[in-house]
Amino acid sequence: MTNDRLALQIAFTLEIDKLKGIGRQTLLADGSRPETDAEHSWHIAIMAHLLAEHAPPGTDIGRVTAMLLVHDLVEIDAGDTFIHDEQGALDKEAREKAAADRLFGLLPPDQGMSFRALWEEFEAKRSNEAIFADALDRMQPILNNFATQGGSWRAHKVTADKVLTLVARIERGSPALGAYTRDLVAEAVRRGYLAAAPTP
Amino acid sequence: MTNDRLALQIAFTLEIDKLKGIGRQTLLADGSRPETDAEHSWHIAIMAHLLAEHAPPGTDIGRVTAMLLVHDLVEIDAGDTFIHDEQGALDKEAREKAAADRLFGLLPPDQGMSFRALWEEFEAKRSNEAIFADALDRMQPILNNFATQGGSWRAHKVTADKVLTLVARIERGSPALGAYTRDLVAEAVRRGYLAAAPTP
Repeated sequence: MTNDRLALQIAFTLEIDKLKGIGRQTLLADGSRPETDAEHSWHIAIMAHLLAEHAPPGTDIGRVTAMLLVHDLVEIDAGDTFIHDEQGALDKEAREKAAADRLFGLLPPDQGMSFRALWEEFEAKRSNEAIFADALDRMQPILNNFATQGGSWRAHKVTADKVLTLVARIERGSPALGAYTRDLVAEAVRRGYLAAAPTP
Repeated sequence: MTNDRLALQIAFTLEIDKLKGIGRQTLLADGSRPETDAEHSWHIAIMAHLLAEHAPPGTDIGRVTAMLLVHDLVEIDAGDTFIHDEQGALDKEAREKAAADRLFGLLPPDQGMSFRALWEEFEAKRSNEAIFADALDRMQPILNNFATQGGSWRAHKVTADKVLTLVARIERGSPALGAYTRDLVAEAVRRGYLAAAPTP
């Protein structure tokens, strides 16, 4: 091929196909199997459009979407670290940084920098766009766990106090989505999908 | 919940989780299994950002992305019709229209209309955005079929003359991507991944 820049972009396109092979803890809403990272990324990217009106005024939903499409790519090398895995959290940052170096390094340099900037903005959770993206990333597993009567909560003995720390992050991105999710967690406890607190 | 509008949006969010259960003919690039519609939708949505510079000047990539995130939702009811399935093509339009009525009808009316408009724009393939989105939708399976040494081409005895009708659609959306894909199809024929024409 004479177009070297396009050749790098196509090689990257094929490399990130591996995101379809990274399994998550969250089950599909029908409970049939765990979802993949690529499926999760699609789901929250479309949620950004669907729930845009619940973001703070002026939030750039195009940028939220781009961030969500990119946010899990580092898991191609680093794997999916379960949100409540305290051991895995210890070296998560180092593993994901190394993955970002390798993956975004496959792109033409200017483009590698702009993709990496999206990922770093998401990780930093300081812009309105990153905070709203994080809210969607935290909300979708809660919806699917409720739909599957406890799903990965049961499998990992997750309790409501842990889930409520995530609800606080959703509230930060969107009071309306936070309130909805807080009610849903309370209902999950009432229905026995989720234990209120660890048994002593 | 007191917020009826949000309740409809959340019900839709869970309903479209079913896109993760719709299998396609295209294999993952490692050949391990067919991809799902949700995975495919993620892949081409990120390709819209990655390959944006190859779209006609002025193309709204945010709208291309939104269209690609939404474009396969009708397959939740209508199923995936293989691109070279001439029998399936006969009633595809009617099946997909009924699916659009049901699915977009789940949303608050204004939002159902705007999501449906994205899908109809994609289907009509008249705007620059829809034509570029179609190019990506046609290109990704060709990349994955090449990576899997023939993948779904072999499985369905697809020949190069059929694939070249799709390359013409890619060229319409992007001369650069069309030229790249045309070369790739020629290389696939040379390597024996794809037969040049049906055996008489």
